[in-house]
Amino acid sequence: MLERRVTLITLGVSDLARARAFYAALGWRETGEPQPGVAFYQLLGQALALYPLADLARDQGRALTPGSGAVTLAQNVASAAAVDALHAAALAAGAAQVTAPAPTQWGGYVGYFADPDGHVWEVAHAPMLPLGADGSLTLPGAAA
Amino acid sequence: MLERRVTLITLGVSDLARARAFYAALGWRETGEPQPGVAFYQLLGQALALYPLADLARDQGRALTPGSGAVTLAQNVASAAAVDALHAAALAAGAAQVTAPAPTQWGGYVGYFADPDGHVWEVAHAPMLPLGADGSLTLPGAAA
Repeated sequence: MLERRVTLITLGVSDLARARAFYAALGWRETGEPQPGVAFYQLLGQALALYPLADLARDQGRALTPGSGAVTLAQNVASAAAVDALHAAALAAGAAQVTAPAPTQWGGYVGYFADPDGHVWEVAHAPMLPLGADGSLTLPGAAA
Repeated sequence: MLERRVTLITLGVSDLARARAFYAALGWRETGEPQPGVAFYQLLGQALALYPLADLARDQGRALTPGSGAVTLAQNVASAAAVDALHAAALAAGAAQVTAPAPTQWGGYVGYFADPDGHVWEVAHAPMLPLGADGSLTLPGAAA
C-alpha cells in the first residue's frame, strides 16, 4: 500500500549552482553540510532535493523532459497580499512569470511562477483552507 | 520569502476517473466529500490533488506536457523488502515500471514506477534516513 505521504520531492535541474542560487535568493537555507552533487532542504516532515537532471535520468534509465510537466508545487499563504509579495519576490529572484496573481473562480487568489529549470510553483491564498501555526495545510474533513 | 514548505502537490491527469481508481487501488482514500472535478488527499501537513490536465493548463494559461517531467515524488519506507512489496503492488494496480527495485550507489534501495498519467514515484529505503512514527522524514542536521 502506498501510504498517503510524500517524503522527498526531487527536482531535476540542468545547472545545480543556478538552482541553488535561485532558492537561496528566495530565502531557502540548505539542510546539513552542503554536498557537491545535490542540495537538500528540510520541509515539513519531508525533504526537497535539487539534483542534476542528467543524474536523475541515469537513475531512472531514461530521458527526462526538463521542468515539472503537469506537476505543480504550491505554497499556500495567509493572504492575497502575501501572494502578491511572494510572487514578486520570485520574479525578482529570477523566476519566470506563468500567471500574474489573480482571483480564482473558487474564491482563492493565485499566481504561478517557474524556477530557472521550469519547475512550476503556485502561490495560493485559499481562504477556506486555514494554515496551521507551522504552515501546514489540513483539508476540511481530514482525519486528525 | 518562499517558506520551506509545499502545502499542495497538484498532479494534472488526463482521465480523472482512471487516476482516482489507480490511487484507490494503492489504498488511498480521498479526503472529504468526493468532488466531481478534483480529488484531494490529505498527506502529512500537505495535500495532494488529482486535477484534470486541461483545467490545470487553463489555470496556467499555457499548454502542459503530461507526466511529471523532471519531478519525482518519493515515498521512503522502512526496509528494502517494503520497497519490493510497494513497487509490486503499484505494478499490480496498473503502474508502469520505470526501474526495478535495486541497490543504489549511496547505500539505498530504490524502485521507480509511473502512474497512469506518467507521474513518477520513487519508492526508497534510505537506511541513513530513519522515518518518524508518523512516516515523516527529517534530514540529518535539520533544525527541530
